[in-house]
Amino acid sequence: MLKVAILGGSGYTGSELLRLLLSHPQAKITAVTSERLAGSHVSDVFLNIRGTGLVYEPLKPENLIKKADLFFLCLPHKTSQEAASFFYNSGKKVIDLSADYRLKSAAVYEKWYETPHKFKSLLKKAVYGLPEIYRSEIENASLIANPGCYPTGAILGLAPIIGTNLAEIDSIIIDSKSGVSGAGRNPALPFMFSEANESVKAYAIASHRHTPEIEQELSLMSKKKLNIIFTPHIMPMDRGILSTIYVRLGNSASLSTIQNMYRNFYKSAPFVRVLKNGIYPITKAVKGSNYCDISVFLDKRQSNHNTLIIVTAIDNLLKGASGQAVQNMNIMHGFEETAGLASLSPSP
Amino acid sequence: MLKVAILGGSGYTGSELLRLLLSHPQAKITAVTSERLAGSHVSDVFLNIRGTGLVYEPLKPENLIKKADLFFLCLPHKTSQEAASFFYNSGKKVIDLSADYRLKSAAVYEKWYETPHKFKSLLKKAVYGLPEIYRSEIENASLIANPGCYPTGAILGLAPIIGTNLAEIDSIIIDSKSGVSGAGRNPALPFMFSEANESVKAYAIASHRHTPEIEQELSLMSKKKLNIIFTPHIMPMDRGILSTIYVRLGNSASLSTIQNMYRNFYKSAPFVRVLKNGIYPITKAVKGSNYCDISVFLDKRQSNHNTLIIVTAIDNLLKGASGQAVQNMNIMHGFEETAGLASLSPSP
Amino acid sequence: MLKVAILGGSGYTGSELLRLLLSHPQAKITAVTSERLAGSHVSDVFLNIRGTGLVYEPLKPENLIKKADLFFLCLPHKTSQEAASFFYNSGKKVIDLSADYRLKSAAVYEKWYETPHKFKSLLKKAVYGLPEIYRSEIENASLIANPGCYPTGAILGLAPIIGTNLAEIDSIIIDSKSGVSGAGRNPALPFMFSEANESVKAYAIASHRHTPEIEQELSLMSKKKLNIIFTPHIMPMDRGILSTIYVRLGNSASLSTIQNMYRNFYKSAPFVRVLKNGIYPITKAVKGSNYCDISVFLDKRQSNHNTLIIVTAIDNLLKGASGQAVQNMNIMHGFEETAGLASLSPSP
Amino acid sequence: MLKVAILGGSGYTGSELLRLLLSHPQAKITAVTSERLAGSHVSDVFLNIRGTGLVYEPLKPENLIKKADLFFLCLPHKTSQEAASFFYNSGKKVIDLSADYRLKSAAVYEKWYETPHKFKSLLKKAVYGLPEIYRSEIENASLIANPGCYPTGAILGLAPIIGTNLAEIDSIIIDSKSGVSGAGRNPALPFMFSEANESVKAYAIASHRHTPEIEQELSLMSKKKLNIIFTPHIMPMDRGILSTIYVRLGNSASLSTIQNMYRNFYKSAPFVRVLKNGIYPITKAVKGSNYCDISVFLDKRQSNHNTLIIVTAIDNLLKGASGQAVQNMNIMHGFEETAGLASLSPSP
Repeated sequence: MLKVAILGGSGYTGSELLRLLLSHPQAKITAVTSERLAGSHVSDVFLNIRGTGLVYEPLKPENLIKKADLFFLCLPHKTSQEAASFFYNSGKKVIDLSADYRLKSAAVYEKWYETPHKFKSLLKKAVYGLPEIYRSEIENASLIANPGCYPTGAILGLAPIIGTNLAEIDSIIIDSKSGVSGAGRNPALPFMFSEANESVKAYAIASHRHTPEIEQELSLMSKKKLNIIFTPHIMPMDRGILSTIYVRLGNSASLSTIQNMYRNFYKSAPFVRVLKNGIYPITKAVKGSNYCDISVFLDKRQSNHNTLIIVTAIDNLLKGASGQAVQNMNIMHGFEETAGLASLSPSP
Repeated sequence: MLKVAILGGSGYTGSELLRLLLSHPQAKITAVTSERLAGSHVSDVFLNIRGTGLVYEPLKPENLIKKADLFFLCLPHKTSQEAASFFYNSGKKVIDLSADYRLKSAAVYEKWYETPHKFKSLLKKAVYGLPEIYRSEIENASLIANPGCYPTGAILGLAPIIGTNLAEIDSIIIDSKSGVSGAGRNPALPFMFSEANESVKAYAIASHRHTPEIEQELSLMSKKKLNIIFTPHIMPMDRGILSTIYVRLGNSASLSTIQNMYRNFYKSAPFVRVLKNGIYPITKAVKGSNYCDISVFLDKRQSNHNTLIIVTAIDNLLKGASGQAVQNMNIMHGFEETAGLASLSPSP
Repeated sequence: MLKVAILGGSGYTGSELLRLLLSHPQAKITAVTSERLAGSHVSDVFLNIRGTGLVYEPLKPENLIKKADLFFLCLPHKTSQEAASFFYNSGKKVIDLSADYRLKSAAVYEKWYETPHKFKSLLKKAVYGLPEIYRSEIENASLIANPGCYPTGAILGLAPIIGTNLAEIDSIIIDSKSGVSGAGRNPALPFMFSEANESVKAYAIASHRHTPEIEQELSLMSKKKLNIIFTPHIMPMDRGILSTIYVRLGNSASLSTIQNMYRNFYKSAPFVRVLKNGIYPITKAVKGSNYCDISVFLDKRQSNHNTLIIVTAIDNLLKGASGQAVQNMNIMHGFEETAGLASLSPSP
Repeated sequence: MLKVAILGGSGYTGSELLRLLLSHPQAKITAVTSERLAGSHVSDVFLNIRGTGLVYEPLKPENLIKKADLFFLCLPHKTSQEAASFFYNSGKKVIDLSADYRLKSAAVYEKWYETPHKFKSLLKKAVYGLPEIYRSEIENASLIANPGCYPTGAILGLAPIIGTNLAEIDSIIIDSKSGVSGAGRNPALPFMFSEANESVKAYAIASHRHTPEIEQELSLMSKKKLNIIFTPHIMPMDRGILSTIYVRLGNSASLSTIQNMYRNFYKSAPFVRVLKNGIYPITKAVKGSNYCDISVFLDKRQSNHNTLIIVTAIDNLLKGASGQAVQNMNIMHGFEETAGLASLSPSP
């Protein structure tokens, strides 16, 4: 059994990691940290977590180092920088769920996160943990930068088309709709039930921190630096992100040709499903699972261009965070890619 | 007191008209129809409706003709065609909440609604009932085609910019998010609580019937025939439509210039509010009211063009249907435009 | 126009008072206070509030005293004690929405609220502001203790039966289900969307502070000191309280006899509706309104006793708080009891 | 691998059985039926179900008989009578999720379900499939009557106390709050999103069909025929039942004594957890799992009696239906009781 530690286990990505890893056939949680909750039983904090005697401990790297071989970091960005460096340099495997090692350019990181990056050389070692794109790099990685929730849905939706001659890369608009759990577990007025329920709003237009992450990956795929328009929305449900993505096509192609490109691109990806023609992804069908559903549509009603409309659905806490982290662990350690992740979404 | 009748009072637009008109200072409901519910007391069918002895009656035009001077039609499209014609030709005022008289072109109507239009000449007499655009025509109209819910939010968002030299009119993308009440009151699996709750989905991509309605009005404003990309979504809340609208700008303009254009455009519109810079519309702040909140944002991150992002929020059953119908009635009859419509949205 | 001030206008009872009073035909808001929000425009804090230039000011009694004739106190309990005393002693009318003047016994108050009562003599002057019970006292009152949300639904459900020889007064169980807005507007983990959504829980069993308030009023009505069993629950909706109340009957009576007692009891109460036989109250039909719906049922399946089951539905922020406060104002000042409160609940 | 068939796979209990059994280590689904959906792929009907080629077939017993060794019946009551008899008499194991074999008395069944029971002798062979009570009978059973959702939560809450000398058995009141999925998957107005959302209501007071089922089991445990008061409520969430149960105590006992009785009673039940003193069950912590959380409270405020208040939480579709059915299968076939059921509830 692989010994794993979860650093920062008081939030939703931490609690979902706890849940997933407690029933993982090849991993065993040996430590979970929280400064605020140190001394508390995990199952007293999260009533859904049962059958474990795990107790929160403070994050003391020197105590933790011997306890585990793989460290999941569910720490705030900036805090994660140093922890990742410490465990990486101690020869441990690290999967960082924060944003600290996602952006290859320290300058871009420092601009968007408004804090210095103190481990610039380590940025080069980090592998962006999107298995459908970087599976072979992940196999050999020691430091995984686990993708953001919005980027996961957006990049998976665009990857099959972005590097082709079809996509007009300066035309990409990503309109994403997220459940409230994406805002985390710290109490704040906008995410109170009475404020968030029965409402939808856009936020962070042209300024969301996931923007440069999406742009970095799409630029790599298209081999040209590009910018996107990204509008996140918050809506009254616990989980799920639906991304509706608009791309103009510079060359004509039939919908079935494009659907085949998508099916082919993901033919060996166990967690991505390209839906049948005309079927719309629904977040409820991926909720509680590590799956990503994708469907593509073609709007040919404009006189001077066709537009591809791609819709993707993920669970923001699973494929968009903790599930993907476990998927990365599986690939890093040669486990079955779906180990511990086979749960289907309940209905309803 | 103006005597009004509601034809088709068993659905949500009918029940909201009932609610609004029961407390209107200058109107009195004299009849409400429903074939299925004929003989039932309105307040037994809708427990929220109180203090009235109104009883449903079947829709017999010859009986109804003497009972009222204004007829609100909440009938299915196609059924509404004939009813509107009958009451119009009898010299009555008609506000039709169906789609039957919204499209000026019978051919476009017949294509999208897949049914013949039997009263083509009457199409010319109908006024599209969006008061912020057609107030003076509404004052003199006898037949109002009350706008669809999505078109109301979309057109109000684009009206101030569409006729200027700023908007690239072939670039318009409208991504709308609607509460479930937009689907009406007929039981159907996708709108069951257990299916629609905790989920979001897109639907009718490139094929929603509100598309030609939006295109007609924007084409008139821009004086060029245009097509839009329109993607509706259904999300788990009772009411509200948030529309996120993307338009490329062909000429550069500052955000504050554009905001001023919007404020100026709506300066005498009592139900439209252009929010302060940086404030996002939220559907919860318009729910239960006839207001439309609008905010504009500018994304200048693309190398070759700027994009205006307009966000509008309305209550789909009020400004998007029954509230707007009452607003039209007020204008047609010289009442205060806000009469019976002054309610603010509750919080929360 | 009656000049009114709202002290403590940053929470939901305050914002609902703002909304109701802004459209009240005989009242005018002349001041609204909040220490934290002092200087902010009300309509910037609550996006639903429009058409007013009101600005929050700090609570300085000496400044406020000249501005208004009636003071609504939406302050935390304990803070309200002194404010009520000050304005009352200055000859002003006071409607206190806190718990500070609801309990006639200072000892009971001090036990349940764990704080001293510093104005014991004023307790005697306060009138419990439940108009269906104390209308004539309210007409002449200067200090109204506006009832709690749970007590309103519970007492209205029991008032017609409690003083009769039918009810076994030691058998009363009140099982109440409340929307989340009852928890107020201060951020706290249990009321975050991601925690409260898709869940229901009981809380404060045998220890909720509304217990002695219900007991006081029922004891007065039954002329015997009694204790109740009261279990509040929190459930995932914005507003509404459904109370399911169980009372054993010591003497037999038919359901229709009891229904008639209820109808007779409330025959002149404009906001209470006793539903037809077999019809269940639903909170959605009172949401956004000042109404209370009541229905009674009789379970005769036990061998040795019959049980009356009473179900009541109110909107916790309106009939359970701010709406009732306006109703009290109307009665105190000889306005129409329903002035400013005639809105029906929307559907859906 | 045990070959199992699901008869009636178009509803929620059927789809949850599909989901659970597809990943069960010792069972293999060999057939699933639906008249209406015959010929459709399961994964086209339920988008959450993936990775299976299962296709619905019509319910033809003679075709099915060879395909499986265990038959799960998710058929409507009445229809299930005959199917259970057929497969039972063919020597197969049957787990019937309908109500047809739950009531030992055909007369009681016929009264409450208003239909004749045509297989009265088979009633005697059926075992009530509540493993925490009837584990040893289930081990040897060939026909399991899988309990109703409300009875599961109610009986588990009362079992430890009902047979003692503490409970006054004529005083039991069960006030249950259920998510909407309990109403099934057939479209009907009251369960439409726009009707059920943002609302709570009681229904079927003194007349719900789960009443005699609860009474039968409690009577057996207490060895006296008893009647209960049972009030179900429907509330706006997908899943979960919280039952708040009131029982007068005829003898005094401390809370900790009673808590110990509960812990002892369930000490070998893998799916029942008695919570720590003062901790309230929340349905969200059992949603998506087969667990039942229980907590007990003591109200000693009445002068003449103490009341035990028991709160239980289950997922109505899992421990209340399909999960329990799988648990029964496990016990019948000597599998690990938790096989295929170990999933914890996600958070949030």
